[in-house]
Amino acid sequence: AISGVDSQSSHRVVNLPGLVNVAAFVPGVSKAGSTDFEQVTREAVGAGFSMIRVLPLGSEDCLTDLKALKTAQENSTKAHCDFNFSVAATAANTDQLKLVAGEVGSLFVPFNHMAGNINKVAAVTAHFDVWPSYKPIMTDAKTTDLASVLLLASLYNRNVHVTSVTTVDDIKLIALAKEKGLKVTCDVSVYALFLSQEDFPECKALPTKEDQEALWKNMDIIDCFSVGSLPYQLYKDTHGTEPIASVGIADTLPILSTAVFDGRLTADDIVKRLHTNPKKIFDLHDQPDCSVQVEVREYVMEPKDIWSPFVGKKVHGLVKRVNFNGKTVSLDGKLSSDGKLGTDMSAHLPPAPAKAAAP
Amino acid sequence: AISGVDSQSSHRVVNLPGLVNVAAFVPGVSKAGSTDFEQVTREAVGAGFSMIRVLPLGSEDCLTDLKALKTAQENSTKAHCDFNFSVAATAANTDQLKLVAGEVGSLFVPFNHMAGNINKVAAVTAHFDVWPSYKPIMTDAKTTDLASVLLLASLYNRNVHVTSVTTVDDIKLIALAKEKGLKVTCDVSVYALFLSQEDFPECKALPTKEDQEALWKNMDIIDCFSVGSLPYQLYKDTHGTEPIASVGIADTLPILSTAVFDGRLTADDIVKRLHTNPKKIFDLHDQPDCSVQVEVREYVMEPKDIWSPFVGKKVHGLVKRVNFNGKTVSLDGKLSSDGKLGTDMSAHLPPAPAKAAAP
Ligand SMILES: [Zn+2]
Ligand SMILES: [Zn+2]
Ligand SMILES: [Zn+2]
Ligand SMILES: [Zn+2]
Ligand SMILES: [Zn+2]
Ligand SMILES: [Zn+2]
Ligand SMILES: [Zn+2]
Ligand SMILES: [Zn+2]
Repeated sequence: AISGVDSQSSHRVVNLPGLVNVAAFVPGVSKAGSTDFEQVTREAVGAGFSMIRVLPLGSEDCLTDLKALKTAQENSTKAHCDFNFSVAATAANTDQLKLVAGEVGSLFVPFNHMAGNINKVAAVTAHFDVWPSYKPIMTDAKTTDLASVLLLASLYNRNVHVTSVTTVDDIKLIALAKEKGLKVTCDVSVYALFLSQEDFPECKALPTKEDQEALWKNMDIIDCFSVGSLPYQLYKDTHGTEPIASVGIADTLPILSTAVFDGRLTADDIVKRLHTNPKKIFDLHDQPDCSVQVEVREYVMEPKDIWSPFVGKKVHGLVKRVNFNGKTVSLDGKLSSDGKLGTDMSAHLPPAPAKAAAP
Repeated sequence: AISGVDSQSSHRVVNLPGLVNVAAFVPGVSKAGSTDFEQVTREAVGAGFSMIRVLPLGSEDCLTDLKALKTAQENSTKAHCDFNFSVAATAANTDQLKLVAGEVGSLFVPFNHMAGNINKVAAVTAHFDVWPSYKPIMTDAKTTDLASVLLLASLYNRNVHVTSVTTVDDIKLIALAKEKGLKVTCDVSVYALFLSQEDFPECKALPTKEDQEALWKNMDIIDCFSVGSLPYQLYKDTHGTEPIASVGIADTLPILSTAVFDGRLTADDIVKRLHTNPKKIFDLHDQPDCSVQVEVREYVMEPKDIWSPFVGKKVHGLVKRVNFNGKTVSLDGKLSSDGKLGTDMSAHLPPAPAKAAAP
C-alpha cells in the first residue's frame, strides 16, 4: 500500500490493489430472473472489490447442480467485477459435482445454512472422495461440525477454507489445527469484527463480545476478511424483512480504515486479508490493472439507500476512486461501470506446477 | 485356541486364554460403600474374564478426581480378577488429571454419559495437552463428537480407543480413519452384535438392524469386544428399574460361541478381540496362568438370578472351567473364588521401549 496526498483537498490517500470478497452473498444466486447478482457486483466494484467469490447459498435457492449453475450464469450476464461461482454439497449431490466441477471455483460444504445442511460425516466424506484435489473446499462449519471437516481435511490431506468464523472456540480450534500443520485457512466477516450481540442482541449470528475479542486477539490466524451473509442476516434479524442484496458491502473499507486510524490494524493487514491471501488461497487470477484509492479523513456516515448499522458513526476512510481493468469505474462515489467489464473466472485454473528440469 | 474333548461327556471343548473386558461398567464405581465392584469381578471371573478395565462412569457418580479414585480403590479390596481404573475427563478437571494419571490405566473422554459430558472441543483439547502420551485415551464419542476426538488424535498424533461403537456412520468413519493411518482402535459391545432395536424398540442404545449389519460387515475394523454398559442400559429401558451390577457379563461366551457354531465368527476372532488386541492396545500385563475352557454344546439358556435377554434361546457354548493365576476358580458354574486373587493393575506400565544397541 502506497500513501500519497490527494491534490485537490490535501487529504492523505492510501492506494490499495483491487480487493477480493472471498464470500459474497447473493440472495437470488440461482433464482431465475434475479437481478441480485448485478446489484451485488455493482456495489462491490464501487466499494473497491475487483473480484468476488459468490457463495452458492441463496436466501431461498442454493447452487447445488448443473441446472442451478446455468441459472446463476444467466443471472450474471451483467457483471461489474470479476467473479466465480461455487457449488454447494448436499447429502445427495455427489454425482452432480462431477458435472459442474470444471465450471465452479470451489466446493462449499454448508453446515449452517437455512436449509439442506450436510450434517453427516459420511456425506461429507463422499464429497472429499470425488472433489478434484486442485479445487478448493470451503465450509461454514462450526463447533463439532468444524472438527469433522478438519478431520476429513487431515485424513485426505486437503486444504479447507472455513468461512465466517465467529466464536472463540472455533478460532482456537483453527489456531490449533494450523499449529499442528493442518492445511486450514479462514475468514472472518468484517461485520463480526465491529459489531457484536451487545449491539444487536436479536442477531445470534453476530459474535458475543467475548467471541469478538478472541477474533481480534487471533488476528494472525485470520487469513481473509469477507463480507459474507452477516450484513444480510443482521438486517433480517433487526427488521424482520429482507434487505437489498448488496447490504453491507460498502461499509467494508470505511470501517476497516477506521481500525487503521485507531491503530488496531495496519493498511498491510487489510491488503493481506482482502487481496494477497485470497489470491493465494483460492488460486485466483491476477488483476494488475485494478486498484482502489482510499481517502483518509474523518466523517460521519450518512444514511443512504442501503441500510447500514454504522450510519451516524464517525469513520476514517472514504473510497475515492476505483480502477477496474485500467478504467476508472468509480470516482467520488459516482459509478460509471456499465456491467460489461466483469468476467466469469470460475473455470480459471492455477498454473500447472513447474516440472523438474530434465537432467 | 486349542480344541480338545471333554473326558467325562465327550463334548468338544475349546481352551481360551483369560479374557479381557476393555469396558466394564460398575454402576457404583466411586460411590462410597458400594459392593458393585466385587459383584462385577465375581461374575466376570466366572464368565472367563481374568482382567477388566473399569469404566469411570457410574450410574450416579463418576470417577473424575483423586477423591473418587480413593473411593473406587476402597470399594475394590475384594477383587475376583485383575482390574484397572480410568479417570473421566470433565470440562474442569484438567488439573486433577495430573494427580491421578499415575494411578489409572487410561483417560476416558465421555460424550454420551448421563451427566457431565464433555462436548466442547476446547475442553477435550486441554486434556490432550496434559495427558501423558504413554497412557491410552478412550472415548464413547459418536457422530460429530467422534470426528472431533479423531481430529485431536490426528493433530496430537495420539492413539485413541473408541468404545461401544453402534452405528454404521461411526464404524465407517473409524474404518476411514484407520485406512488413512490414524491410530484409532475400537470395541463393540457383544450385546450390540446380537440384539437390535428390532428386538427392543424401547432401547435406543441398541443399534438398529441396519447399524448391526454394518458392524458385522466391518468385523475386521472391530479391534475388541466388550461388555460395556449396554446390558445395564437395556435392562433399565425395558424394566424401568436398575438391574444388578453384573448383568450381561455371563452371556458373553455363550452367545459368541453360538456365532462360532453358526459360522459367523471363528474362535480366533474371539481370542483376538477379547484377549490379544486388548492386551496390546491397553498395554496390559501378561496373565500366563489364566485360561477358560468352553464346552461346545447346544442348550437352551435357562433363567438365573441375573436377567438375560437370551433366556429361552438356544446357545452353543458353556463356560466349563476358569483358571485364574494357576487356580481353578470356577468349575461347572460353581465359583470358588474368595476375592483375594485379583490385583489392581492401574499403575502397570508397558516395558520401556528397547534402546538401540550401542555401536
Ligand atoms: Zn478529499
Ligand atoms: Zn440452502
Ligand atoms: Zn496482488
Ligand atoms: Zn474517530
Ligand atoms: Zn459336557
Ligand atoms: Zn457421569
Ligand atoms: Zn496372550
Ligand atoms: Zn442353534
